[in-house]
Amino acid sequence: MAPQYQAINFSDKLSKITQFWQPRVVAEMNDYQFKIVRIEGDFIWHDHPETDETFIVLTGQLRIDFHDGAVSIGPGEMFVVPKGVEHKPYAEHEVHLLLIEPRGVLNTGHTGADRTAQNDVWI
Amino acid sequence: MAPQYQAINFSDKLSKITQFWQPRVVAEMNDYQFKIVRIEGDFIWHDHPETDETFIVLTGQLRIDFHDGAVSIGPGEMFVVPKGVEHKPYAEHEVHLLLIEPRGVLNTGHTGADRTAQNDVWI
Repeated sequence: MAPQYQAINFSDKLSKITQFWQPRVVAEMNDYQFKIVRIEGDFIWHDHPETDETFIVLTGQLRIDFHDGAVSIGPGEMFVVPKGVEHKPYAEHEVHLLLIEPRGVLNTGHTGADRTAQNDVWI
Repeated sequence: MAPQYQAINFSDKLSKITQFWQPRVVAEMNDYQFKIVRIEGDFIWHDHPETDETFIVLTGQLRIDFHDGAVSIGPGEMFVVPKGVEHKPYAEHEVHLLLIEPRGVLNTGHTGADRTAQNDVWI
């Protein structure tokens, strides 16, 4: 029997996520991971000293604050936060995101705060 | 004056692309590139011996054929073709894609066919 090839459907994956700020891995490309996350409200300031981080908005309007400005990212839009740049995601209303970053990157960077989510959890 | 931070809007980028099968770079994350491409019809069989390749469908319905099956990928869906696996993208009707792969990867892999697009062209 032929192997089943199955696309990854973001809505299907999102429907299985019940908590905010808990990224879930849906795919890997080489040593990078694709993570789906639901967010609402304010996060903490942090950076990723070792890597850029990509945000693709699926639904809602995301704001990422920087110390010298901000970017607003809506559905069908993306933004790459350069490595080492402190940032703080903010969602006034619920936002669904696709994150892309190397395997092993923590959501809070190197801050080790209590907002740090369990890493490398697949859904 | 504060620097301008600007999201990358896929529709805006797509509106500037006039040719099929010509990927255009819209962003970089570390040594990876995000490419927007409009496709229609049949491509050639090829593989990428050195890397996985990610397809995210923005609009339309993409089929990727493998020698032992196929996958159908619609809007809001993604698929990662593993490195070294021969594949052939096909779009019965026009499809808009976001491709993610390391900088330097050719659209036809190592086949060097006349379908090879100019690489590393930004839009």
